[in-house]
Amino acid sequence: MKNIQVLLASRPRGPVEESNFRIVETDIPKAGEGEFVARAHYLSLDPYMRGRMDDSKSYAPKAVVGDVMVGTVVGEVIESRHEKFKVGDFVETRTGWQLYGRSNGGGVRKVDPGYVPLSAYLGAVGMPGVTAWIGLNEHGRPKAGETVVVSAASGAVGSVVGQLAKLKGCRAVGIAGGRAKCDYVVNELGFDACVDYKAGNLDADLAAACPKGVDVYYDNVGGPVLDAVLLHMNAFSRIPLCGQISGYNDPDALTVRNVRSFLINRIQLRGFICSDHMELWKTALKELGALVHEGKLKYRESIAIGLENAPKAFIGLLKGQNFGKQLVKLI
Amino acid sequence: MKNIQVLLASRPRGPVEESNFRIVETDIPKAGEGEFVARAHYLSLDPYMRGRMDDSKSYAPKAVVGDVMVGTVVGEVIESRHEKFKVGDFVETRTGWQLYGRSNGGGVRKVDPGYVPLSAYLGAVGMPGVTAWIGLNEHGRPKAGETVVVSAASGAVGSVVGQLAKLKGCRAVGIAGGRAKCDYVVNELGFDACVDYKAGNLDADLAAACPKGVDVYYDNVGGPVLDAVLLHMNAFSRIPLCGQISGYNDPDALTVRNVRSFLINRIQLRGFICSDHMELWKTALKELGALVHEGKLKYRESIAIGLENAPKAFIGLLKGQNFGKQLVKLI
Repeated sequence: MKNIQVLLASRPRGPVEESNFRIVETDIPKAGEGEFVARAHYLSLDPYMRGRMDDSKSYAPKAVVGDVMVGTVVGEVIESRHEKFKVGDFVETRTGWQLYGRSNGGGVRKVDPGYVPLSAYLGAVGMPGVTAWIGLNEHGRPKAGETVVVSAASGAVGSVVGQLAKLKGCRAVGIAGGRAKCDYVVNELGFDACVDYKAGNLDADLAAACPKGVDVYYDNVGGPVLDAVLLHMNAFSRIPLCGQISGYNDPDALTVRNVRSFLINRIQLRGFICSDHMELWKTALKELGALVHEGKLKYRESIAIGLENAPKAFIGLLKGQNFGKQLVKLI
Repeated sequence: MKNIQVLLASRPRGPVEESNFRIVETDIPKAGEGEFVARAHYLSLDPYMRGRMDDSKSYAPKAVVGDVMVGTVVGEVIESRHEKFKVGDFVETRTGWQLYGRSNGGGVRKVDPGYVPLSAYLGAVGMPGVTAWIGLNEHGRPKAGETVVVSAASGAVGSVVGQLAKLKGCRAVGIAGGRAKCDYVVNELGFDACVDYKAGNLDADLAAACPKGVDVYYDNVGGPVLDAVLLHMNAFSRIPLCGQISGYNDPDALTVRNVRSFLINRIQLRGFICSDHMELWKTALKELGALVHEGKLKYRESIAIGLENAPKAFIGLLKGQNFGKQLVKLI
């Protein structure tokens, strides 16, 4: 048996291509003193990874060319010389795009696949869910009756934002690309409305979906969608901003023209990432886990099969071709 | 004796012109029951008035074509049938661009020209000073040692922002137009540095003036200056935004391109106007009055003489031709 790894072969110039990655076979690592080795079951693919591939300044260290591509997996401990992790334990760990990873336990979370499905710990009960929870509760702070709009609404973060907003008694309005995603957001996730940004009537469709204006716009995408929503914001509204997927390949695509709205409407915009608020993770994960366990928080997954398909699935994610949380199944 | 009034004759299309105003002579008003009449000594000219002249949605009711142009004056009560105001009292009152105004006392503040000069109640110890105080303390929240940058630094708001920042132990950096204003900001007001945005090296000059980056950018202007400062913001920095003078004639001039910085640096931007925080005025005015009284807070005034020169002075203010708080002396 061998390990398989996906390395960052080169930094992208413009859109990511499969040639930016290289797949290699190596020996399965051995646990040193105070370490364990886990066999990954699912690899999480997330938009933030695109930022790590660049050489520019960002909020996290960049990925290293020639190293295993950074990422989080859930898997099972198969060898342990760490006192807190036993063989057979299930863990969420940041060992990257590979089948077998070694860890000293730092940043590792034990998970229970008997409580919610293992893959949910990479989605609604993991980093994306916590990102949704923090942005909505800490920066959005919606009150019952207010209107909460979220972009990438069928995605891992957006789907949680809207469902949490509904549980708070808000009007939840999604923005997503295409009829199928919008139908899912309304019919399956229970949003009040969903605007298809690809339909070409973004301004009019937003006005119709938000008859009382927008109190919270949870922004996952930036660019023209943010610009359009700005014209519908209410006085003293809030914009938690945690993603700018529209600008990864071309920062100019993030240009915002409707800047007057910030002053006229006394808007509070706050850029954030989930690791800014480590003190909130425990509370958020407990609540999210219970909601998924009880069936009150739904989610959908796009699952690619096999590590060799991870680069292609990641490129699709950046183009919005996924439908729900993008995963790669490794076992 | 007659009253003189400046009416809003028409709404501007593009830059304000003198023809947008009309000067008329009327009778001096008489106080009804529960009212007083005051003779204005100084009229305050402020950038917000430009917004009131437009027909578009803003944070305040628009000025009415044919009515006295909106504005605040300081003056002396000359007739009173109001139990709380006596003849000889000095007041700050929103009776607009005219020599004699009638008031029922709503929103009127009694002022003491023996404590600080009468005109200061329209500047450092009035709305502009409170705007500076609230934006800095409530939204900027600088800590000692942090770098605070403010645009329109020699103006009524900016000059107070920088001096308050210095009193808090911050590095205060101004942005102003031209060498004379920058010299004044550093040499007279005591800022650590001032960048001349007209000199053509905004990015490099900001980098030199802010060797540790920017923790608070107090934005009075918007547009290309905001865009330039965004590239120098530190992680978890704050942008109180209370003015967009660069975009009054052309909203496209407010376009912001460096939007990535909001996420990368987890920036908090907050649009606000001083009337959003009425609960803070008393505290702010007390502190600002004491600082001016003790000579610890300096200011400069551009004074036009005579109400007939108010339109020209206002047009100059919008072009940055004033130097410090723009007033019109009426007596």
